[in-house]
Amino acid sequence: MLNAAPDLRAQIGGIEALHPASGVRGSPIEAVILTGAEIDQTAGLLNLRERHSFAVFGTASTLATLDDNPMFSALAPSLVERKAVAVDTAFRLPGGLSAELFAVPGKIPLYLENGIPEAPIEDGTTVGVEITYGANKLAFVPAAASITPSLKDRLARADLVLFDGTVFTDDEMIACGAGTKTGRRMGHVPIDGADGSLARLSGLPGRHIYIHINNTNPILIDGSPECRRVEASGWEIAKDGLEVTL
Amino acid sequence: MLNAAPDLRAQIGGIEALHPASGVRGSPIEAVILTGAEIDQTAGLLNLRERHSFAVFGTASTLATLDDNPMFSALAPSLVERKAVAVDTAFRLPGGLSAELFAVPGKIPLYLENGIPEAPIEDGTTVGVEITYGANKLAFVPAAASITPSLKDRLARADLVLFDGTVFTDDEMIACGAGTKTGRRMGHVPIDGADGSLARLSGLPGRHIYIHINNTNPILIDGSPECRRVEASGWEIAKDGLEVTL
Repeated sequence: MLNAAPDLRAQIGGIEALHPASGVRGSPIEAVILTGAEIDQTAGLLNLRERHSFAVFGTASTLATLDDNPMFSALAPSLVERKAVAVDTAFRLPGGLSAELFAVPGKIPLYLENGIPEAPIEDGTTVGVEITYGANKLAFVPAAASITPSLKDRLARADLVLFDGTVFTDDEMIACGAGTKTGRRMGHVPIDGADGSLARLSGLPGRHIYIHINNTNPILIDGSPECRRVEASGWEIAKDGLEVTL
Repeated sequence: MLNAAPDLRAQIGGIEALHPASGVRGSPIEAVILTGAEIDQTAGLLNLRERHSFAVFGTASTLATLDDNPMFSALAPSLVERKAVAVDTAFRLPGGLSAELFAVPGKIPLYLENGIPEAPIEDGTTVGVEITYGANKLAFVPAAASITPSLKDRLARADLVLFDGTVFTDDEMIACGAGTKTGRRMGHVPIDGADGSLARLSGLPGRHIYIHINNTNPILIDGSPECRRVEASGWEIAKDGLEVTL
């Protein structure tokens, strides 16, 4: 969890703006920002459906996928407003925060592929979030298929970067027998390699933390060579219960 | 959790037949039985999607709702077989178990209602599960809008009954400001009242436990009058971590 202010927190996996709970079944969540419509980005909404009022922000593409799925109608339209926001356009969040989505190379959700892999796209299907609080900026990018110059610029201006650390090597899932796809095929640039995030993002001025780490990724093993290499490069490795202050 | 045999367990909320885990990402789950297509009956499948092979059993009606929702295509068809089973027809599960679905009065999932409430139906949209292991029978009914003679007969022949204890009184959600619907409108017969489950199911010969208990239900408060009344009538009240032996 990320403490931006005493009563505002962002959850890794989506971003949620929190206020103190109130009412019989109050929840402190006032806003959810979706970075895409993949299951791990949206299914958590189904746990928030008990007649609690909040706003869901996402690109038109992401919200269209929600609109097409009847299960999300359990989020009562009278209580849960869906707000389409364009990339590169700031919008206000509760509690004095502002946010801006930015396109990153990604892919449509696996469950919509119909077996046809597509080349990475950069059209708002997958986005990162930049959150501004006062003079400070946070960049949240749980999925990026590659690192473009514009993505690097976004990350370079953030005080705190939470970045896609799904796999260490591109063929990691295949090599350990956990899957048949490369990291890039799943929409995740690997950490290692000439085009990996470690090399391409070296020298980020702000604090930077790998998140969204797959359980095949050896950086999760304390003291492993991969863990040490990442830490020696100035990266932190997210863990359960992580709290950071912006 | 329910221990039917050392390596077979059923999870409250759905029924799962378990075997020991194996493989890189092995899971002990070999089969899932759905009692309907409501979110709390099906969304858990989305957590089982990481290329693990198991079977999903449900009525044709329940499986059709899954088929209509692209999100469940994340359960790879090559690994996760969907098996439609008719009510009142036994089928085999791994580990020497057999199971049989039976129709109970219920309703279509809330997210498919389109705002139009319907009278309770008894067509396989909502089912209970009877599991047989050797000479012993378990009945699992997390949702029933009313108690019919045939439902009572099913429960009376079970050694162990896990039954819908969502609300104590029909207007409980309204009275405490947590919602606008009665228990019956949500597909759940209340515990209290002349037609409630406590009166209609008195004298069940097997062990019987209330499950699927809403957080507005006062039987959850240790020592409350409602808790004492239910326990004095021979009912147990499920709690987190419950384990029972069939």
